[in-house]
Amino acid sequence: MEKKKRFILPEEEIPTQWYNIQADMVNKPLLPIHPATKQPLKPEDLYPIFAEELCKQELDQTNPWYDIPEEVREQYKCYRSTPLVRAYGLEKALDTPAHIYFKNESVSPVGSHKLNSALAQAYYCKKQGVTNVTTETGAGQWGAALAYAANVFGLNAAVYQVKISYEQKPYRRSIMQTFGAQVTPSPSMSTRAGKDILTKYPNHQGSLGTAISEAIELAMSTPNCKYTLGSVLSHVTLHQTVIGQEAEKQMAMAGEYPDIIIACFGGGSNFGGIAFPFMRHTLKEGRKTRYIAAEPASCPKLTKGEFLYDFGDETGYTPLLPMYTLGHNFRPANIHAGGLRYHGAGVIVSQLLKDKMIEAVDIQQLESFDAGCLFARAEGIIPAPESCHAIAAAIKEAQRCKEAGEGKVILFNLSGHGLIDMTAYDQYLAGDLTNFELSEEEIRKTIDEVKAL
Amino acid sequence: MEKKKRFILPEEEIPTQWYNIQADMVNKPLLPIHPATKQPLKPEDLYPIFAEELCKQELDQTNPWYDIPEEVREQYKCYRSTPLVRAYGLEKALDTPAHIYFKNESVSPVGSHKLNSALAQAYYCKKQGVTNVTTETGAGQWGAALAYAANVFGLNAAVYQVKISYEQKPYRRSIMQTFGAQVTPSPSMSTRAGKDILTKYPNHQGSLGTAISEAIELAMSTPNCKYTLGSVLSHVTLHQTVIGQEAEKQMAMAGEYPDIIIACFGGGSNFGGIAFPFMRHTLKEGRKTRYIAAEPASCPKLTKGEFLYDFGDETGYTPLLPMYTLGHNFRPANIHAGGLRYHGAGVIVSQLLKDKMIEAVDIQQLESFDAGCLFARAEGIIPAPESCHAIAAAIKEAQRCKEAGEGKVILFNLSGHGLIDMTAYDQYLAGDLTNFELSEEEIRKTIDEVKAL
Repeated sequence: MEKKKRFILPEEEIPTQWYNIQADMVNKPLLPIHPATKQPLKPEDLYPIFAEELCKQELDQTNPWYDIPEEVREQYKCYRSTPLVRAYGLEKALDTPAHIYFKNESVSPVGSHKLNSALAQAYYCKKQGVTNVTTETGAGQWGAALAYAANVFGLNAAVYQVKISYEQKPYRRSIMQTFGAQVTPSPSMSTRAGKDILTKYPNHQGSLGTAISEAIELAMSTPNCKYTLGSVLSHVTLHQTVIGQEAEKQMAMAGEYPDIIIACFGGGSNFGGIAFPFMRHTLKEGRKTRYIAAEPASCPKLTKGEFLYDFGDETGYTPLLPMYTLGHNFRPANIHAGGLRYHGAGVIVSQLLKDKMIEAVDIQQLESFDAGCLFARAEGIIPAPESCHAIAAAIKEAQRCKEAGEGKVILFNLSGHGLIDMTAYDQYLAGDLTNFELSEEEIRKTIDEVKAL
Repeated sequence: MEKKKRFILPEEEIPTQWYNIQADMVNKPLLPIHPATKQPLKPEDLYPIFAEELCKQELDQTNPWYDIPEEVREQYKCYRSTPLVRAYGLEKALDTPAHIYFKNESVSPVGSHKLNSALAQAYYCKKQGVTNVTTETGAGQWGAALAYAANVFGLNAAVYQVKISYEQKPYRRSIMQTFGAQVTPSPSMSTRAGKDILTKYPNHQGSLGTAISEAIELAMSTPNCKYTLGSVLSHVTLHQTVIGQEAEKQMAMAGEYPDIIIACFGGGSNFGGIAFPFMRHTLKEGRKTRYIAAEPASCPKLTKGEFLYDFGDETGYTPLLPMYTLGHNFRPANIHAGGLRYHGAGVIVSQLLKDKMIEAVDIQQLESFDAGCLFARAEGIIPAPESCHAIAAAIKEAQRCKEAGEGKVILFNLSGHGLIDMTAYDQYLAGDLTNFELSEEEIRKTIDEVKAL
């Protein structure tokens, strides 16, 4: 009998709702705090920054399901369902008894899962009569998705791209511009936040925290303009749950259920997107599944950060969020996985980690590219540097299965492809790529600054 | 009722055979001629260059169907079926009553249709015990596909990439190297063919004809090595017929049948791949369908070339092929659609054009990018510069439908995405892109050289 390789859902099986795990959590996430009043945040407090519907979604701890608007579902049809793939090639290369599956979000037209939330956010902005949107982007996956979505719904888009990524990945800038967006390297001189940071650190290479400050400032100072965010926040993760819902149906088509679910971790949206629909069965039915977040060793908020109230951006424009953080002044090394260079974790994931519902591992840059190249040659898809972290973690687990002689079922999210990140592979193949060592002192310094707030 | 956007076949519906249109043609293609003996070519004459099975397929005018080997079908499953997509966004942007569909071959892991033949060719080489393969590549789509396929079947691959593309599209080189291939810009000093050309034209920017000469020479002078080709030849087109066979089933799912079928044209493999399975119904049942090949105005072999016996490469290592040609010394302008910079058309397409079974249009570079950008914003996929030619031709037909008030069904092949070609889009968006005017004299010169052979 021929082995089935890819599982794809018919169009009518694409999810019609998003799943809000907050409703099913035993310990709800702590509420964000307004930095001025120190009071728990209300949706209205966020209205100046985000579309109103998104503010409601952000703080909703009650309603487990949200209908996906028809306009967004129509757009999802352009690339969803994404394939669930049995990684026979990788299994063979590792000689493991584990069954490895990956959800291939890289087939979206912009090459990553980010479109799932970009379309939703752009839609709600449009519905509310907003005409301009701003955002930050690291490697450019989110910026490309937002540029695409803004174009779909007829909005102007301004994107602040982390400077180091703007220089490392020029094609992503071109993609955003092809969809009609304006792209500015951050920190820039176009905002007060950017000017202040450049004054303090003239050679600042940029970070997601800085770019967020700039984008929020532009949104606040521009008529009829809202800010949008690519990860971290709960409403972003909500939209990403289409990934896990599809994967659940597709695993059923394969006649299996995952023992271990893995995703790379920047702010948490692709991790939550694939994990939360499965975690529902852990929360409600006690189903035993391990959930592993794979973060870069050079930005280890989950494995070495502390659970604190901290700002989501470098300048301090956002509410104070209860999260595992390295401190909003933490300046991550220039790894190629630009999308993972963020100092904190979303509030839902932070609470779940505190409650030991999930695990975290940190992966060095070289190990991530070892894994990425092995995967490329075994499965034919060149993964995004971010996704390489998930692959590395999956390989570790598959190797443990081999040692233990256990045929576990491993599912990971391939959040994006790396076709725009080939300079990173060039450096890796040439032997020029390095790890970044991070001292305890470096981590303590920016965490202690938060404690002193 | 919701409109269905994408049509995808279940894995068991992926074609199990390739279609050889030569068996059904009324006027068979003329046979290639051995340049030394001037006798019609026999399969054995090609054995030194290609895997034996491919030589048989190349010259077979009798057998209409070839079983796809199981090993190749297993590999097809990694990305096939590719989606057939109804281009609602493009229809709306054009305000046309036409129904526009495209077959999205860009979702293959290397971003184009080329993998369909690369996997077949690498497989037959492997089966015969070959350990090394060589090839040429223009924009790099074929080279990336061959590198991928060689890696799958455990072969060493050496790729000569047209120098101008090697410089314009460095990421494609990186992709080939990530899959383990050796990449050399052509013309190079590593072959006699390359040295001769560089001596004659020191600033030669390369062409597919030149790179083919170098790759054939390397194959002939390397033990246990065969040459592989990405287009032009009949066996390459044979493998590409999975595209049209899938599209036929998917059009049936959509409840329609195409009135017009369009593909861009370099050597003819993606055109034949989508057109021939439909043309079977024209040949056998008299079904009325128009087939349009869209070539670049700067390399107009179909619209301005002549039907002659000519070499397939610049140096003259290949047999003499009966084809529409601009002459093997024709040096095409440096357009970004590197995959279309070839002087001749495959023998099957040439015969069909001679018999008026197909039509050809030529598209200027600026028009191709106008079409590509319109498509990107309407459908969200940034097309390869080559594919932009097919889109431009489809737009012309859709506009004609609007003028005539006719709701025709148009199907085109989106042969690849343009994510690695963003420098071309940068130039287009900056207004720096130009057309290339080609004089009658330039065309006549290289055609007359062939006539004087």
